[in-house]
Amino acid sequence: MSKARYTIVMSVTAILDRLSAQFGDRLATAPAIRDAHGRGEAFHPVLAPDGVVFPRSTDEVQAIVRACAASATPIVPFGAGTSLEGGVAATRGGICINLSGMDRVLAVNGDDLDCAVEAGVTREALNLHLRDQGLFFPVDPGANATLGGMAATRASGTTAVRYGTMRDNVLWLTVVLANGEVIRTARRARKSSAGYDLTGLFVGSEGTLGLITEVGLRLRGIPETIAAASCGFADLGGATRCVIELLQLGVPIARVELMDAVQVRACNAYSRTSLVEAPTLVFEFHGAPAAVREQVETVEALAQANGGAAFAWAHAAEARSALWRARHNAYHAAQALRPGSTLIVTDVCVPISRLADCIVETHADLAAGGVVAPIVGHVGDGNFHVFFCVDPNDTTDIARARALNDRLVARALAMDGTCTGEHGIGMGKIGKLIDELGAGTVDAMSTLKRSLDPGGLFNPGKIFAAN
Amino acid sequence: MSKARYTIVMSVTAILDRLSAQFGDRLATAPAIRDAHGRGEAFHPVLAPDGVVFPRSTDEVQAIVRACAASATPIVPFGAGTSLEGGVAATRGGICINLSGMDRVLAVNGDDLDCAVEAGVTREALNLHLRDQGLFFPVDPGANATLGGMAATRASGTTAVRYGTMRDNVLWLTVVLANGEVIRTARRARKSSAGYDLTGLFVGSEGTLGLITEVGLRLRGIPETIAAASCGFADLGGATRCVIELLQLGVPIARVELMDAVQVRACNAYSRTSLVEAPTLVFEFHGAPAAVREQVETVEALAQANGGAAFAWAHAAEARSALWRARHNAYHAAQALRPGSTLIVTDVCVPISRLADCIVETHADLAAGGVVAPIVGHVGDGNFHVFFCVDPNDTTDIARARALNDRLVARALAMDGTCTGEHGIGMGKIGKLIDELGAGTVDAMSTLKRSLDPGGLFNPGKIFAAN
Repeated sequence: MSKARYTIVMSVTAILDRLSAQFGDRLATAPAIRDAHGRGEAFHPVLAPDGVVFPRSTDEVQAIVRACAASATPIVPFGAGTSLEGGVAATRGGICINLSGMDRVLAVNGDDLDCAVEAGVTREALNLHLRDQGLFFPVDPGANATLGGMAATRASGTTAVRYGTMRDNVLWLTVVLANGEVIRTARRARKSSAGYDLTGLFVGSEGTLGLITEVGLRLRGIPETIAAASCGFADLGGATRCVIELLQLGVPIARVELMDAVQVRACNAYSRTSLVEAPTLVFEFHGAPAAVREQVETVEALAQANGGAAFAWAHAAEARSALWRARHNAYHAAQALRPGSTLIVTDVCVPISRLADCIVETHADLAAGGVVAPIVGHVGDGNFHVFFCVDPNDTTDIARARALNDRLVARALAMDGTCTGEHGIGMGKIGKLIDELGAGTVDAMSTLKRSLDPGGLFNPGKIFAAN
Repeated sequence: MSKARYTIVMSVTAILDRLSAQFGDRLATAPAIRDAHGRGEAFHPVLAPDGVVFPRSTDEVQAIVRACAASATPIVPFGAGTSLEGGVAATRGGICINLSGMDRVLAVNGDDLDCAVEAGVTREALNLHLRDQGLFFPVDPGANATLGGMAATRASGTTAVRYGTMRDNVLWLTVVLANGEVIRTARRARKSSAGYDLTGLFVGSEGTLGLITEVGLRLRGIPETIAAASCGFADLGGATRCVIELLQLGVPIARVELMDAVQVRACNAYSRTSLVEAPTLVFEFHGAPAAVREQVETVEALAQANGGAAFAWAHAAEARSALWRARHNAYHAAQALRPGSTLIVTDVCVPISRLADCIVETHADLAAGGVVAPIVGHVGDGNFHVFFCVDPNDTTDIARARALNDRLVARALAMDGTCTGEHGIGMGKIGKLIDELGAGTVDAMSTLKRSLDPGGLFNPGKIFAAN
């Protein structure tokens, strides 16, 4: 036992020496830097890597992977550190590969509505780069995550209802495998039936199958007309029914976000908005002018029929930005409801027909539990979050939030939903993955994992308890 | 060597006896039935299985897979037999599982716009089932394939430009694995980040990873307005440029199909349409009334700017059906251009910016080759087919078509395209898959294959030369 531990320590020292020789001061071992790489956002323990290396190219990543493979050293990829389920925790130490230095936009093919980026490019940087060409990348998880991290987590967010998730918007990937090979998963054609969908397999694999270094993305033209509005409702049920009906009518809504009254109050306080403190939907409409007018008329009528007030329009681009900034800051606004608190964030997604039931039952359960826990959601997908504001030093408080979270996941699964719509399994939902899909399905995933990464090199302790 | 062959023959006899005991006359061994299951459409050799079994449930499929696994007998799944790349050929004999008896629609969830079907339900049967509920399943490969077969092939077709391919429209699968386990790949939520995307891995796996028995599908509401029109162009380049421009403008076109003048002539003769014999686009527009009017105005202006004639509208539902029936019968119409011929069908897909070059160069190459080979295409995806009408008994003729096909694939790959947009690799494009993605990527696919099917039970000789 002590001999095994000694072997591990020795090999870590050896790999650090080796990487130091190649990367110089782009290998960091200072405790503060290691700790900063050992956690994402939300409440999970800090598990620091032994070193953090900052590569600048796929070739450099390949060299790191080969060195780690030769010494059986775990590898944890790191983008912007915005994981909410402990995705970047170094459960067994090892080397963290911080990809933020791989931040080049490699190509933009305007005619084909696609682009190639290095994995460390953030979505905001990409959209800034694209703006002059009239193009944008639609997937918007709120956080300014890296596109490699978003691919690895199968992220989505506010616009998935119209434009899909990362699953739908990644065209190809460059990946460094555990065997040291660099592969490209697909070519640039918009569709293909050529072999297995490796792109789709790596999207959402949370760094456990290989290391994503480049991403091919589908782009869109900036819509001719964009209109945004908020609408307060008499109750949560009416707001969710409005969403169900607009989807059933096939309205191509670009965004439809729900905030409960608690979250609206939090946003008003944090972002100085002046929304009515009621269950609120925030809509965005994209399209050609007549099409947008037609969508707005339809949705206004549905809102009124479901207890909605008049739409409050955010006409100017600045007003629209302020509205969405408030929505994107919902996480921090929730935290400010209880100063000093840390958030435990959940993330379930149910078939849309069950959404009203799921949200209303959850709201009642939270109220009975006496917690500060606003609800926000990408309700067009059937996806919503609860932000549990907990005192990180109060174990009772944490246990209560966890129990409510467990009940919420069980409720979503009973409705044929999923334990995570967009945050991933990470460390936080390993057991819930088995509850959701069964041991046979998770065994098949684990078999795939072992086949591509027989040494268990990549992001150990994520998705599966042991790999 | 002779001993090994003897062992195989013995085990086939044993498995046939065993299946006969369970399935009675639902196990067929008559040569005519076996031969009919040894080929799909288009030009590939007939490779018959040793027996064909017709299960009626997932449990029965599981029993067959377990029996075959115990005796190392190859398994080939069969739906409607419309594969174009030899996907159903029994390269090593064994048992063909014909799923056409698993033809129940298990559930339609209108509120959630999804449904559950057994793998043997055909797309036309499903749409007939859905029509009264105002819903439809959009993926339309032309052939009346089974939904299990369409999932296995990652099929697409005329509507992919708007509604996506099977990759985008399969929500979950029930799969029987080589280890005899029955797994479900996902739940019914519209999106999920729960573990690896097994749904996406099995979609397009061509029966090589497991046997799909049930399919969860995304549905759409039948659009309020549907308008279809054809438009002849002065040349192929103008027609393809029109398509590129409408996509760049973000027009949500539902269908945009190209036929060259040869194919239009073939369709006029075969389907008694009276289209002008010129490079022709056939459009379909779906949406709310004002949105459709706006789309039509935009596309008519683009067509005229690119050498298009006035739109010929198919206003009534019957006229629209006749137009699309002619398009769907393009395969048979092409065959009728040269009575007694068999088709060699190709299927490439390139980035849309290269589509005009690819089609124009291919057209010139075909003309120089002196072959009867019309071009049709789902050009909104950058995807097109050439139907080589060959004399199946003339090896020179076949060799000439194959050489032109090889050059076409090489041309598409040089343009960063794919060797198959929607027909799959099957037996026909095993070498081209390596040309497209490289040995490292295909090795990774093969590693995944061996991990889930270590005995090489499922559909041997497809996608990979040896598995």
